[in-house]
Formats: sequence, structure tokens, C-alpha cells
Amino acid sequence: MATKGCVTIPTDVGIDKEMQEVIKRWGADAIRDCDGTKLSSDLQNLNLKMYSTYLPTRNDQEWAKSNMDQLQQLYVVSESNIALDTTISIDIMKGFYKEQFKPNTKDDIKSLWEVVDRTTGEKIDSNKWIYDYEKNYVIVNDIIPFHEYTVSFLVYQIWDPTQMYNHLTNNWGDKPHEMPYDGRHPETFEHMKNYLQNWINENPEIDVVRFTTFFYHFTLIYNDQAKEKFVDWFGYSSSLSKECLDEFEKEKGYRLRAEDIIDEGYYNSPFRIPTKEYLDFVDFQSKFVATNAKEFVDIAHNAKKEAMMFLGDNWIGTEPYGKYFESIGLDAVVGSVGNGTTMRMISDIPGVKYTEGRFLPYFFPDVFREGGDPVGEARENWTQARRAILRKPLDRIGYGGYLGLALQFPEFVDEVEKICEEFRTIHNNIQKTKAHTAPFKVAVLNCWGKLRSWQTNQVAHALWYKEIYSYVGVIECLSGMPLDVEFINFEDIRKGIPSDIGVIINAGDAMTSWSGGENWIDEDIITVLRRWVYEGGGFIGVGEPTAYQKQGKLFQLFDVLGVDRDLTYGLSYRKYNELTKEHFITEEIKEGFDFGEGKEGIFKKRDSVEILSIHKGDIALSTNNYGKGRAVYMSGLPYTPENCRLLLRSIYWVKNMENDMKEYYVSNVNTECAAFTEVGKMAVINNSFDNQTTDVYIKGELVETLTLKSGELVWMNIK
Amino acid sequence: MATKGCVTIPTDVGIDKEMQEVIKRWGADAIRDCDGTKLSSDLQNLNLKMYSTYLPTRNDQEWAKSNMDQLQQLYVVSESNIALDTTISIDIMKGFYKEQFKPNTKDDIKSLWEVVDRTTGEKIDSNKWIYDYEKNYVIVNDIIPFHEYTVSFLVYQIWDPTQMYNHLTNNWGDKPHEMPYDGRHPETFEHMKNYLQNWINENPEIDVVRFTTFFYHFTLIYNDQAKEKFVDWFGYSSSLSKECLDEFEKEKGYRLRAEDIIDEGYYNSPFRIPTKEYLDFVDFQSKFVATNAKEFVDIAHNAKKEAMMFLGDNWIGTEPYGKYFESIGLDAVVGSVGNGTTMRMISDIPGVKYTEGRFLPYFFPDVFREGGDPVGEARENWTQARRAILRKPLDRIGYGGYLGLALQFPEFVDEVEKICEEFRTIHNNIQKTKAHTAPFKVAVLNCWGKLRSWQTNQVAHALWYKEIYSYVGVIECLSGMPLDVEFINFEDIRKGIPSDIGVIINAGDAMTSWSGGENWIDEDIITVLRRWVYEGGGFIGVGEPTAYQKQGKLFQLFDVLGVDRDLTYGLSYRKYNELTKEHFITEEIKEGFDFGEGKEGIFKKRDSVEILSIHKGDIALSTNNYGKGRAVYMSGLPYTPENCRLLLRSIYWVKNMENDMKEYYVSNVNTECAAFTEVGKMAVINNSFDNQTTDVYIKGELVETLTLKSGELVWMNIK
Repeated sequence: MATKGCVTIPTDVGIDKEMQEVIKRWGADAIRDCDGTKLSSDLQNLNLKMYSTYLPTRNDQEWAKSNMDQLQQLYVVSESNIALDTTISIDIMKGFYKEQFKPNTKDDIKSLWEVVDRTTGEKIDSNKWIYDYEKNYVIVNDIIPFHEYTVSFLVYQIWDPTQMYNHLTNNWGDKPHEMPYDGRHPETFEHMKNYLQNWINENPEIDVVRFTTFFYHFTLIYNDQAKEKFVDWFGYSSSLSKECLDEFEKEKGYRLRAEDIIDEGYYNSPFRIPTKEYLDFVDFQSKFVATNAKEFVDIAHNAKKEAMMFLGDNWIGTEPYGKYFESIGLDAVVGSVGNGTTMRMISDIPGVKYTEGRFLPYFFPDVFREGGDPVGEARENWTQARRAILRKPLDRIGYGGYLGLALQFPEFVDEVEKICEEFRTIHNNIQKTKAHTAPFKVAVLNCWGKLRSWQTNQVAHALWYKEIYSYVGVIECLSGMPLDVEFINFEDIRKGIPSDIGVIINAGDAMTSWSGGENWIDEDIITVLRRWVYEGGGFIGVGEPTAYQKQGKLFQLFDVLGVDRDLTYGLSYRKYNELTKEHFITEEIKEGFDFGEGKEGIFKKRDSVEILSIHKGDIALSTNNYGKGRAVYMSGLPYTPENCRLLLRSIYWVKNMENDMKEYYVSNVNTECAAFTEVGKMAVINNSFDNQTTDVYIKGELVETLTLKSGELVWMNIK
Repeated sequence: MATKGCVTIPTDVGIDKEMQEVIKRWGADAIRDCDGTKLSSDLQNLNLKMYSTYLPTRNDQEWAKSNMDQLQQLYVVSESNIALDTTISIDIMKGFYKEQFKPNTKDDIKSLWEVVDRTTGEKIDSNKWIYDYEKNYVIVNDIIPFHEYTVSFLVYQIWDPTQMYNHLTNNWGDKPHEMPYDGRHPETFEHMKNYLQNWINENPEIDVVRFTTFFYHFTLIYNDQAKEKFVDWFGYSSSLSKECLDEFEKEKGYRLRAEDIIDEGYYNSPFRIPTKEYLDFVDFQSKFVATNAKEFVDIAHNAKKEAMMFLGDNWIGTEPYGKYFESIGLDAVVGSVGNGTTMRMISDIPGVKYTEGRFLPYFFPDVFREGGDPVGEARENWTQARRAILRKPLDRIGYGGYLGLALQFPEFVDEVEKICEEFRTIHNNIQKTKAHTAPFKVAVLNCWGKLRSWQTNQVAHALWYKEIYSYVGVIECLSGMPLDVEFINFEDIRKGIPSDIGVIINAGDAMTSWSGGENWIDEDIITVLRRWVYEGGGFIGVGEPTAYQKQGKLFQLFDVLGVDRDLTYGLSYRKYNELTKEHFITEEIKEGFDFGEGKEGIFKKRDSVEILSIHKGDIALSTNNYGKGRAVYMSGLPYTPENCRLLLRSIYWVKNMENDMKEYYVSNVNTECAAFTEVGKMAVINNSFDNQTTDVYIKGELVETLTLKSGELVWMNIK
């Protein structure tokens, strides 16, 4: 059994001896040297691979100061203003943090800015407004009293959002503000490349250039109280400029409006149904970023160094499931692992040599203090990620923060030692083979499809929001299940559902990108899916699937699901919701159901429906038959062990393959198994922190009853 | 103090002596003689006014049998059917109760029936379908596989819904089914009049003809299990016929489609935003019913009898707040009093000489049995209605059912004696004067306006539904408050808000008639209301007021309300919802708030907002300033004593008249007062069944502290 490798640790200063010890115990083979400081010769002799972070957009603040017109820009929208008269003065910077933004008045504001009547949605003719350059006011004339007006405008980002966040959070006082520059400008881009080349020349000991990241930060806007106003981890608004819009026009053949970015003030949040224009913009920026990032990667490669990308911060334009990502030529991606979903988001990334996950907790004083529970957090984070690792492992794991802090907690050091050992054992045992999965794929259907694989219904990765946890549970369950999962969009449906897909899941709130909105009144989508289920496909709807209120129903696939949601128009219909007591999909779920926030007003619309759970009179869980196909409706699916099992059973049931479920199976919902048939081994895991007894099935036969200790992983031979 | 009058009791047989006793104790002066049986001479000597019920549409079943083509008809829609091929056979009667309906195939089905593609909403050309008269199947050809199809068709009502309901509920076995005929046919109408004339001639002892009611029953459709399928107390679908559609076309200049009545299967439920076509139809039928009902009333009047209408059952076309109602010339309306709202619905009816309320409980064995609580029910019903009676009293009260049953419960007889006495005392004390009200009117704004006064957000009157109780509380609170209340619609707003309106309330779910739907993206509505509030009006929104998702907001008057609801598009915005601890509107509410079902995702949109209650992170109660005006938002308002007070205080606060609230006022939320300044008397009521101590304010001054016993009403002199 290997005792070394696959683990990265952070450096720290003045603890050489302790570091040597922990490197040995954790089997670390790489070290992340945040500040480019040299390692001591003792450590250098350990032959550790050395990573160094590199921030392409702001590591030369002299350049930033000398080229203020080449800073990164955003399109932002002013607060909403109600006209009291036929003229209005709008303080465009009101509500924004003036340390972060400065209006760009250098470029032609008349063609780049927009005043919009938000009562009608109409753009105001630009000769009706003027700009007061002193006060930052837009004065609009000849308008309609008591209509609402906003100004969309470009601002320079005069404080890098990540540095601003760290600066304000950690009270860095008068430490200078760093400004991010935009590689869209050829001069700046050339400078960025030269700077990288110099840095590489000056740091020959580095093995891996860890880019954080390339060009554009996700959208992070502060308010006038220097607090978060708007945060969209997926947002492209911070990548705008006149030059960008000009080039977009050249490439795509039409010009974007400010409104295409502003999007009524929602800035194209991932919950919005993406417009063609926005998708074009994402494509355009991704291509630009990929093309240019490749030049950075090439510089690293030419110096015989690996290029690793951090999945976060300035990651806009490098979405790893986008069509240009692979062309960047990266060796590796590293990202933070908050749970099974974020683990899969990293480990499934195509076209890189390896992936690495940064585990929790970070070695920061918020956890590593008296009363903190670093051991518990590490164990929980590992256990939730482990079930997903068994499906598609990361190649490496690692930790971040101040190592010295962690070393003060010996039990934590012990715990991580066990985790590293278990991680390497998985790799050694499975020998790069893939765990057994069902003989069909499961597809998650929404407006984003593959581009946002493992990112559905997320505001920011692994953060809890009341509005999303009942949906995020779906992918969190899937992340560790013995199934091949794909993410598809409505275009994929229009092209014809691939034959290897057996089950389609649609989960989200009505009129969001996750549910699908107007796609559900597209005859083609409806008829293709109906026929597909009728001929044997399985369909699972969660929350408000297939929802668009039209022609007497909210759920347009009410016939497939067998249920609909009544938005009170149908209150005059008597609802007869009666429970079916026993059903295959709820067989092993002993405890009460948890559908999270759920949905109200769900009622039976077809006689073939069986209702398995009712909440306050409304259906929370039901099944339906549709031709040779089947469907399940759930009002929500937070991540719980019971819900993992409920989803697994639902998937086999809708696919009409109940009898195949126990090919490799463990009965206790707190346990799961992953069978590696090529190497004749099966991992059985206990996801709970209690002892669990579970029946093990192979090829449908009960072969053994195991008892697993808290969080234990047991390997069985299955040859 | 009067000891007799204003009370109606039901007859019963074989209990003459006991009846004389109870007539004396309750002070009854009228008797409702359900079956037209003669009273004993002893009772006749008591000089009681005598009512007799009359059912115009079904009291001659011989006529019904001989004129089966003149029975009442409905437009109904078949169940939904998914085509599996390019042809489909639709069993149109599937899911309907065949004892209730029979398809009308006598009239031209090709012009009267419609096959609709519910996937697209398009009507199928009538030459694409044929009807199998044997099987009741519509066969549609040349259609699109996996589209959804329905058939809208006319049926004869071969069982009167009220009789069917009673028949099935009480297991009347082989008692013949009564069929309702349609006065739209001149022959039938003539017969109905003659029959009434004969009946009147034969029953000279009757003083009051109590019509139940005139022509058309509300929509009541049973399913194939002989259970309720669809019940709409406001529904006009049971008043259709070819003749009616022909006359509509003549009168209104265009022809209605079946779909105008079917309405995607929702049958124009009151929760739907009424179309112009449907409003035209309501107007057309109301005019027809009023014109013809008047002829019935005239027959009664010519015989020196009073004409009284029962508000229910066959009341369609006689909506008492409609523009034709007064022209019927009725002497009186009687209806069932379930609470304050239904009491006001009756007592506010314009253009009749008197109103009468039937109180609960009915003298039926479901309550009048061992373990039943008739005393409690009577007391609760009276107490909830009494606060509304003090604002606008009924002229008479009464009870229904089997009197003999009630007499077996001596405590009930005592309780009703007290109620009758208290009712008469109110009349004697107030001397037909009106209770003091605020110096401004409160308007409830929705799509129905005046026509559905005191009927907002109701499925059937006084029935509890999870979906409505959080809104119905608004009118239930208002029914007993010292305010003049009007019900207005969006047309009224377009015409200009009347100057006597001080506060407007909009309460309902998004996209329903009660909230207003697309009216909220009408620039005129928006600007008129904004200006009106800005200049000093008060606005109160409950649930999803002013809601229509457009241009970055759901609540189109987000600026007035200061809050909006986020349907997840704005999740990336950080919401800073902080509580304000003290506020005028919550001053007297000591207990926890109850917003009923509430709404999620309500957040602060204006800095001027003060948040008074937060539920699961979302705003449940807030206030805002808007120019000289003000607004309050509540996520729901079930009827509770605390919520009555919360609404009262909100109304005075939004009107900027906090200092005027205590003109006549009692401090304890379980108590209310009604000041009759013209007669110098004030009633103070205890709405609870505990003792309550309350401070009494007159003209802003604390004048007395009263202690009231359970449910007590105390009269004070205020001269």
C-alpha cells in the first residue's frame, strides 16, 4: 500500500521540523508556496513538487496605475428612480461603493450607456439625456411622471474584488488597493505575457504555475456601506468594455445592448432563462479567454512547468465544461471541495491531466481555535466527498491555509493522516478503473445543460440558500450514486434524446433556467419528451418541473408526471389526494420524508398516479405510469441519506428496472457501495458517524451482512 | 326595550305548544313554512308573518319531463387526452356523472362544440372531427401525435344540482330526480309564471314568497364516482344554451366561443382574471335574469305578497351588487351568515326594503346530538357576526332546520333568546343611525370590484381553504371595523380614484383576479396609483399585491410598498432585512404575529422601509413612506383579533392620521367599539370568551376602563 503521494500541503514559515514530520505522516508530495518564498534546503531535499500561485490581472500595480483606461470594466445599472415630473436627475453611483467603481466617461457614453423606462421597458432616446460629469448625475428630460427610470453604464473596476473582499474582511487598513487590468487591450495583454515570462525566469524552482485564474473575475459588487450588494459566481458582467462590444459585433454580426448584460437588473443570473444574446456573449468571451489563456499556458510549458488553473475568482470565461476549455491546454485544475457536488464539478472536468481538490477546513483561525471543531469538519467534508470520489476520483487532494495553525491540533493531524491514507488506498485499489454504474445514463435537463455540469440551482458553490437546498440535493445525491450523469439542455432535446439516456430529471422553480420556462410551451420539446417517456423513458420532476402556466396547467408535462400545481385557478376543482401505503421507491425509507421547502398546491391529474406522501393536503411524492414509461414527482429533495436512496430507487423504478437495482447494493440507507468489477473489489462506505449494519447484495443475491464503524470504508473482494 | 320582532323561525310539526313558548321567548314574528303546510289555528292566531319557499326552475317535474329540450344546459369540457397517433377517440362523458348530464346533440354540435389542441391552444377545424352518437365519442382526425386534445360541449342538466346534492348526501334512494328547466325558452318562461300565479292563488295565507332563487344554479359538477368534481359558487356555466348564445350575439354584437365559457377548463373561476367576453356574458345574463325575475316579483306583488330572494343555489344572474339587481324590485334578501363577511355581504345589499340573515347552527342532527355543541356554535357565530352587525345591521335574523330538534336543548333555547334580545337591543339603541367611521373610505381593489363586494378571495362563502384564509382575513377584519369600505376594480382606477377614498388595499396571489395580473403592467394604473399615494394616499398590500413579473420586479408598485418578492432571479442580491423594534402599527399587539400562509422571498427594496416582522429570513410585515403617502405590506392576514387591530392601525397609519384613530377607541385587541353619535350611545363588545379589561377612549381621551364578561356587549352613553 502506498504511503506517499497525491497530497498537497501549504507552506508555512519557521516550522521546518514540524513540516518534515507532517509531510511524512500525510504522505505529501507537493507543496503550495503561496508567496513565492524559497523553501529551506531541508525541505527542498524532500523532492516536493512546488506550486506557486500567479495572479495575471493584478500582479503589476505599476502597470495598472499607468494604464487606468485599460482597467477591467463592468456594466452596472443604477438604482431605480421614479420620475416625479417630466425630468429627473439620477445619481448613477448611488448605492455603489465608490472605492470599487468609477464611471467610464472616456468612451462614448451616448452609445454605451442606456437610460431605460422600467415601467414600459423602453430605451430612452439618447438625445433626451445629458450627463453631469461633476456630480455623476444623468439628467433625463421629456419623460413621463411616475414612470421608473434606470441608467445602465460602464464603470472601471478600481479595486480588484478578491483583494477588496480580503482587505475589508481582514481590516488591512491602508494597504494599497489593487486594480485589475483587462487583457482585452493588446498592450496590456502583451505586458501580462512578458510579466509572466519574467516571473517564470525569476522563479526556476517552481514546478507548477497555479493561475488564479486568467482574465475576469466573477461579478462581485459592493454597496455604499462597503458590504456585498450583488454576488454572482457565474456572472460575466465584469468582463465588459467598448473594445469587447466592438469585437463581439465583428464576430457575431450584431451589437449587444447594455440591456443584454444588465438584464432588468438581474445581470443574467444563472436562474434567469438565458437569452440568445447572453449565450452568444458567454461563447464569445470564453473563446477569447481560452485563446489568450493558452498563450499563458504555453509560456509555462515552454519553461517546462505545469499549468494549473484555480476554479474560482477570475475564472470567468474558463468554464471547464464549455467548448473552448480543453483548447487552453491546462495540465490541471484545482478547486475547493465543499461536498460531493463540487468534488464532481472538479473531478469530471475533461481534457486535463489531473484534478486536485482543496478540502475543508482551511487552516484559518475561525476553525482552528478553542471551541472550534476542525476534526469534525474534516471528517464531515471527507465523508460527504468520499461517496462522490468513489464514482470519479480526484487525482490529488490538498489543504490550504496556515499549516502551523493545524499542527497545533494533533487530533486533526491524525485525522488528515487517515484521510490521506484512505484516499491513496482508493486509488491503489481501483487502479484507474471505473465503478459499476447502471446500464443507462441519467440526464439532468435545464437551460444550461453541459456548460453548467454539477452547477445546477447554485448561487455560489456549496453555499446554503433556503431557495435552493431542496433542488441542490438532487445533484448532491447524484454525485455519489452508481450512475452515469449527464447535463443536457433543451437544444439537446430538440436534436433528439441520445439513446444511452434512460432517465431525465427536471428540477427547479417555475420560470427559472433550471425548470426551463418557455421551453415548456415549445411543441417540439413537449412532443419529443412525451413520446420518449411513452416508449419507455423515465422522467423525474422536482419542485416545479416543466412549468409554464398555459392552457389549463402549470406543469406542461402534467400527463407524464400525472400531477400538476394549482395556482388557485383550479380551487373550484375538488382534489382527491389519497395515499398509497407501499411502493418500491419508498421501501427502505423508514423515517419521515424530508422534501425541504416543497411546493404547495400539487394535485393528482391522472388516475394512474400513486401518491406516496402528502404534506398539508398537497402531494409531495407521487409516481405515474405513461405508456411503457414512468415518472416520479417530488416536491423537493434536500440532501439526506434517505433522499439518496429515494432518488436511486426512483431512477430504477421510472426506468422499469427495479430488478436490476441490486446488482451491487447495500440495504442500509446510511451505507453505499461502489463495485470495481475490473479489479474485483467493492468499497462499502458508512456515510454516518454511527455504527451501521447493512446487507450486501451482489447480482441480486444477499451475500453478506456487514457492520461498519463510524465513517468506515470496507473493501470486499467480489471476484 | 322591545321583546318581540325581527326574528324568523322554522316551522315543525306536532310541537304546537312548545312552538308557542319559543315564539314568545325568542320574540319571533315570522315563520318559515318550508313545505307550504298549513299552520295550526293556534299559531295562526299569533299573527306571524309567513314565508314559503318557492323553487321556480324545478317545482313542476311534469313540465320538465315533457320538455327535455328546454332543460338547463352547461358548457363542460372533456378530460384531457393525449393523442398517440394522428387520430384520437375522445370519450367526452368520461369523468362526468352520467346521472347528472346528457350531451345536447339536438343543437348543431359542429357550431356549438369545440375540439381544442391544448398544447397550442388552437381550435381544431370542425371538419376534422366527427361524433359517434352511440358511444358519446368524438373522433378527431389529422392531428399531431402527443398533443393534448379536449372537447368542449353542451350538456343538459338532467338532475338539479341542489336536489342531487341533498339526494346523494341523505341517501334518498329511489326518490325521483328533479330536472331544472330553463326560462330562456319563452314557452318555459310562460309556464313558470303561470305556475307561480297558480301557486300563489292556492296559498293565500303566505305573506312572503321566498324565491330559491330564480333561473340558474351556480356551477356544481359531479364526477363518475358521484362525488364533487367542480364547485364554483360564482359560476355561470350552468346558464348556457344555443338560444342564450344567439341572443348574446344579437345584444353584444359578437358571438361567444365555447372557450369563452370553458376558459382552459377553469370555467372562469373568480380567481381568474375575467376576460372582456366573460364580463360581457355576466352582464348579459344578469340583465336577462333581472328582467325576467322582475316578472315573478310583480306576480307576488300583485297578490299583495312580499318577494324575498335567497342568496344562494339558483342565484346566478342576481348578483346583488350588480347593476341590474335593484331593478328586480325585491322586498328582501335572505342568506346564510357564516361570519362577519357574509353578514356584510347580505346587510350591505342595496335597493331592498330589508335583509335577513340565517344564523348557525342549522337545527340538524349533525350538531344537535349528544356531544354536539350547539350553544358554542351559536355563540361563536353570533359573536363573529355581531361586530359586523354593529357597522351595518341586518334587519332581521333567523334560524333554519327542525325546530323540534333545537327545543330538546334548553341551554340552546336560552342562548338564542339572549341573542335575539341583544339583536333587538342594538336596533332599539341605534335607531337606524350609522356607527361612527373614519373620515375617509377604504377601498379593496381587484378585478371584480363592486360586483363582488364582500366576496373577494372566496371559493364558496365562509368555507376555509388553505389557499384563501390568509386573504379572506382582510375582509373579515374589515367587516366589523369602524370604516366605510368599498370594493373597486381597475376600471374605477382608470376613471380616477374617487376623492373620498383614503386607503386602497390590494390582497391576493400573483396573477389572480384579486391581485390584478396584467392590470399591473398598465402604465395608467401604475402612474395613477403612484401619484395618488405620493400625494397622500394610503396603500396596503397583502400577499402578492401589484404582482406581475416584468422589468426587474414582481411587485410593480415595489416603490410604493418598498418591498418586492424575489422569484429567485435576484438571489445574487444580498438581502439586508433588519427589524425595527417599535412602530405605531404594532403597538398593541403583544402576542406573536400570524400571517397565515405568508409569502416567501419578500425583501426590502427601498431604504425608507421599516421591517416589523421577519419570517424565515423574509419580510412578513413592513411599512414605507412615499411622498406624502404611506404603504404597509403584509405577507398574509388571517382573521384574528390581533390582525383586526393590526389592520386598523395600518389603515390609520398609511393615511397619516394616527392621531385621529382614538376618536372612539378601546385598547384591548379582544374588544371593539361602535359609536352612534347621533343617538349618543356607544357599544363596546368583547369578541372573546374570557373576561377582558379595556381602556375606552373618546376624542383621544381615556374616559373609562371597562371590564367585560365573556362575549359581553356594554352600552355607554357618549352624549
